[in-house]
Amino acid sequence: MNAQPTELLRQTQELSDSVTTPILGSKKAYVDGSRPDLRVPMREIALSETPKMFGSAEPNAPFFVYDTSGPYTDPTANIDLAAGLAPLRASWIAERGDTERLTGLSSEFGRSRETNAKLDAVRFGHRPLPRRAKAGMNVSQMHYARRGIVTPEMEYIAIRENQRIEGIREAHLLRQHAGESFGAAIQKIITPEFVREEVARGRAIIPANINHPEIEPMIIGRNFLTKVNANIGNSAVSSGIAEEVEKLVWSIRWGADTVMDLSTGKNIHETREWILRNSPVPIGTVPIYQALEKVDGRAEELTWDIFRDTLIEQAEQGVDYFTIHAGVLLRYVPLTAKRVTGIVSRGGSILAKWCLAHHRENFLYTHFEEICEIMKAYDVSFSLGDGLRPGSIADANDAAQFGELETLGELTKIAWKHDVQTMIEGPGHVPMHLIKENMDKQLAVCGEAPFYTLGPLTTDIAPGYDHITSAIGAAMIGWFGTAMLCYVTPKEHLGLPNKHDVREGLMAYKIAAHAADLAKGHPGAQARDNALSKARFEFRWEDQFNLGLDPERAREYHDETMPKEAHKSAHFCSMCGPHFCSMKITQDVREYAETHGVAETAALEQGMAEKAAEFRAAGAQVYRPE
Amino acid sequence: MNAQPTELLRQTQELSDSVTTPILGSKKAYVDGSRPDLRVPMREIALSETPKMFGSAEPNAPFFVYDTSGPYTDPTANIDLAAGLAPLRASWIAERGDTERLTGLSSEFGRSRETNAKLDAVRFGHRPLPRRAKAGMNVSQMHYARRGIVTPEMEYIAIRENQRIEGIREAHLLRQHAGESFGAAIQKIITPEFVREEVARGRAIIPANINHPEIEPMIIGRNFLTKVNANIGNSAVSSGIAEEVEKLVWSIRWGADTVMDLSTGKNIHETREWILRNSPVPIGTVPIYQALEKVDGRAEELTWDIFRDTLIEQAEQGVDYFTIHAGVLLRYVPLTAKRVTGIVSRGGSILAKWCLAHHRENFLYTHFEEICEIMKAYDVSFSLGDGLRPGSIADANDAAQFGELETLGELTKIAWKHDVQTMIEGPGHVPMHLIKENMDKQLAVCGEAPFYTLGPLTTDIAPGYDHITSAIGAAMIGWFGTAMLCYVTPKEHLGLPNKHDVREGLMAYKIAAHAADLAKGHPGAQARDNALSKARFEFRWEDQFNLGLDPERAREYHDETMPKEAHKSAHFCSMCGPHFCSMKITQDVREYAETHGVAETAALEQGMAEKAAEFRAAGAQVYRPE
Repeated sequence: MNAQPTELLRQTQELSDSVTTPILGSKKAYVDGSRPDLRVPMREIALSETPKMFGSAEPNAPFFVYDTSGPYTDPTANIDLAAGLAPLRASWIAERGDTERLTGLSSEFGRSRETNAKLDAVRFGHRPLPRRAKAGMNVSQMHYARRGIVTPEMEYIAIRENQRIEGIREAHLLRQHAGESFGAAIQKIITPEFVREEVARGRAIIPANINHPEIEPMIIGRNFLTKVNANIGNSAVSSGIAEEVEKLVWSIRWGADTVMDLSTGKNIHETREWILRNSPVPIGTVPIYQALEKVDGRAEELTWDIFRDTLIEQAEQGVDYFTIHAGVLLRYVPLTAKRVTGIVSRGGSILAKWCLAHHRENFLYTHFEEICEIMKAYDVSFSLGDGLRPGSIADANDAAQFGELETLGELTKIAWKHDVQTMIEGPGHVPMHLIKENMDKQLAVCGEAPFYTLGPLTTDIAPGYDHITSAIGAAMIGWFGTAMLCYVTPKEHLGLPNKHDVREGLMAYKIAAHAADLAKGHPGAQARDNALSKARFEFRWEDQFNLGLDPERAREYHDETMPKEAHKSAHFCSMCGPHFCSMKITQDVREYAETHGVAETAALEQGMAEKAAEFRAAGAQVYRPE
Repeated sequence: MNAQPTELLRQTQELSDSVTTPILGSKKAYVDGSRPDLRVPMREIALSETPKMFGSAEPNAPFFVYDTSGPYTDPTANIDLAAGLAPLRASWIAERGDTERLTGLSSEFGRSRETNAKLDAVRFGHRPLPRRAKAGMNVSQMHYARRGIVTPEMEYIAIRENQRIEGIREAHLLRQHAGESFGAAIQKIITPEFVREEVARGRAIIPANINHPEIEPMIIGRNFLTKVNANIGNSAVSSGIAEEVEKLVWSIRWGADTVMDLSTGKNIHETREWILRNSPVPIGTVPIYQALEKVDGRAEELTWDIFRDTLIEQAEQGVDYFTIHAGVLLRYVPLTAKRVTGIVSRGGSILAKWCLAHHRENFLYTHFEEICEIMKAYDVSFSLGDGLRPGSIADANDAAQFGELETLGELTKIAWKHDVQTMIEGPGHVPMHLIKENMDKQLAVCGEAPFYTLGPLTTDIAPGYDHITSAIGAAMIGWFGTAMLCYVTPKEHLGLPNKHDVREGLMAYKIAAHAADLAKGHPGAQARDNALSKARFEFRWEDQFNLGLDPERAREYHDETMPKEAHKSAHFCSMCGPHFCSMKITQDVREYAETHGVAETAALEQGMAEKAAEFRAAGAQVYRPE
């Protein structure tokens, strides 16, 4: 990065303006909690009234949806990317009294970056000094939960998860199919106490590093809304800091619940700082990527000390969860030799290479309890990595993959012994009929710790469309119980996603997550479908667009065929044109059913039932041509 | 359509050139059958050799895939859209001796269009006179099948379905997971006799109107490859003949197995003729759309005579299957009154309106056996329409929908009594957990007649992305046993698809269909995944692109990050860059496993197993920080 300070500042200043736009048809609303500094953001979608032709004209109440987009979509927020977001949770963290602000960075690497004048041009300018747990203290949300404490984070999450469905008065919006949750403990209303219980028993995590006070707390667990993660990050061959920050804001605009910074290119440390300070969602990383950069890509030169320093460096920046590939055991590695695509996880192959080079057990496994000590001092959550996940349909559900999963189950129990929040990463490439086995096995061996899966991709044959091959698997595994779905973009296997790919990937995954919530029977999940379908049926075009996952795209597509403003209130569409309309006929049916009344309708049904009986008796004869 | 004859001819001449392009990386190959005029097209993908770094350099045999694209991708074909395709099946049909060429059109409407000078500008110029069964004859493939006759169409299909997997010599390509087919009768190799049996018992159909000799025969049934249909057609507010013909060619290029012409706009008859004469895939229509145009959109004015004339008109043009909404019974109509989205099927609402207006039973139901008589005289297949399919998640699997399905089951048996080929249309909008019930019920009540579903869409909240909401449902229902998936494009609910939308929709559905084949365990389905994954693993970029569903898109995406030609043979990608590569490390693992041999690998596993046992005995103590 040879940009002058002014160059990056200029870029981020420009970005500060361009990323600050409300979502079409929505405004930011806040729901107040029990304390003045607990205000939970939602997106409020104003709806127009039902036209008279559908009975009496009646207003439709505004609809509230979960909002991941942070202050960027709040026109009253003062966004300056170079200054970062306001530290929403700062007082919550401070008042717990179990942390202290350090006088300097604890990691060697962090300190070396601080004092390197060459980095002035790319360094984020407003870095606070980090906090750490006081000696002997454990500051994880799990630790609080297990001691019976309902934190402000937990209350925030309860309000957020409910999406104000308790405020919905229209019975037709609350109609919902009974779901099939495969044994999940789905609640009608999420209470702060339920959040606490789920975190205490390890069935959910709240990724919330004490050094990332900017986050709007969220939860990952199968008894909550299914979440979506977006991966961003540069590589050796592409992309600068401003671009990554833009991808972050773009990700949350389109619904990312968490974002992973997978940078492997230049200035990883500085890029991460920019991302963290501007992120209202939890940020995950794969620390081994950066550790590898520190040994110039030579996996065999990795050491526990280098890795440990990296963990502390990142924990003090505020990373909320770490992917740790501690389940890649030496004995599993040869099991991948006959695979079609071997080891495709970057982290997995780094560790495999290290294990083979030294003929020793994975140092993340042997140092696992030391890692736990670091995690609990900052409340970093584990995302136990699936370094041996299948990279092709052929390799799905094999001995290497499931061997590792069992080890991750053992490690989960160790993490829980330390009250360290833990989720488990999952595959990969899996044909549809083998997906459920993954979920069932994960639930069984990992004690219901949240599952966090990449896809899975249900076929290998569509490079360029792997957001779709994988959205199919993601929707299914989400239904079966996966708590968070890691998106895949159309560029998967081909290149790094740009911001447009990020949007495509997120849309596919928001669909998968919501389809999963519907199938599980998550309370209130269907309300948005009902509201949108009612708008569609009533030709409230603007409402249909605005209730959708991507109001801009929907409007754009509609306007391609019928661009005129008047068409937005037209009671027809380009599919059938103005002369005939299915929706309109349904209105006739309703009027018919009403005019003829319940008695006649019942009689009609009765009469026809007799006719059908007659038909069955006579065989097909009744159908003789007239 | 005010174009002068020269205008449409000019357009189609231009198109004739532009639509004649081989698919990137493929060439047309033909597999010979038992007679000289039986040559089955395939797409042959040449592969490069495995680089030395992956063991010894070895060649990879060309890979053959199913090819729907017709002569358009054969550079030796002489394409002239104004002349139409060669009548591949003409002699097969003629030599059966059960049809006669008519001396004129039988339908009044057809004759009126013939003699209307105003239509000279849009009329297809090379119309053959139609054929019809001789008096008392039945010319359906089902009729032949039931009499034990293996037609050339059946042999053609057997060769086509096998995709030359019997020619694959590489064992690693034939590795495949055992599937879960839910009781389907999946075969290792498809024989012509098996095709005959399946058609005879109604479990599969071969849409093949005797007046559409241009088709390359294909089959729809759950014991064959899952098929995909693309809808095209103009509407009152859009699109001309040339554009629709282009969409047809574009559809089959991207994998459409059949195409439905759903035109409701101007010159429906002439548009259809152009489409048929240039289509190597079966064409389906919804005749009630055109019948409605004949009564200026007033559903209540429809009569059996008008409809009957329309069926004959279209049958003599060569339409291969008709959507007939004969299951929309009067008694079911009031059941839709309380729905969120009422009746959304265009055909369904036309018939509902007619039933209500006359307070009489659906005339398609009361005239069903007469319709059968027409179908068997031309071998038009039924696609029994689901006029009461749900248009929203809320309305899924309700009494109206399932009532109609039961009636479709009764009608299937009547059609079969006439040896008329029949498939059944299915929903719609259905949440994931209610999808299987649709398939199970359809199999039960329709005697395993092929199911042909639209999606289903698994959520309503993503206008602009309904190719994805529905690909999820399509993949699942395909796995469960649906024989053909009707695509949904990104424009669904918003406007008519253009050719770019057609491609997006098809890609989503080719993915769904293939994912379904993999999950069912269709023989050889995984070979393409294996071949592509092996190419990916070996950094054979060109092979990876060419084996994919969309070689152009894959290449384009790759080139965005790494445009240089040299990068196509680079042994790294933009995700990790040149310094580190997961794939390369797997190669080390293989070498390790080979060097250390089976014995040491086994010992290693044993040693680790002991260590694991030790760990279990000692609890988590073994993990104490060093």
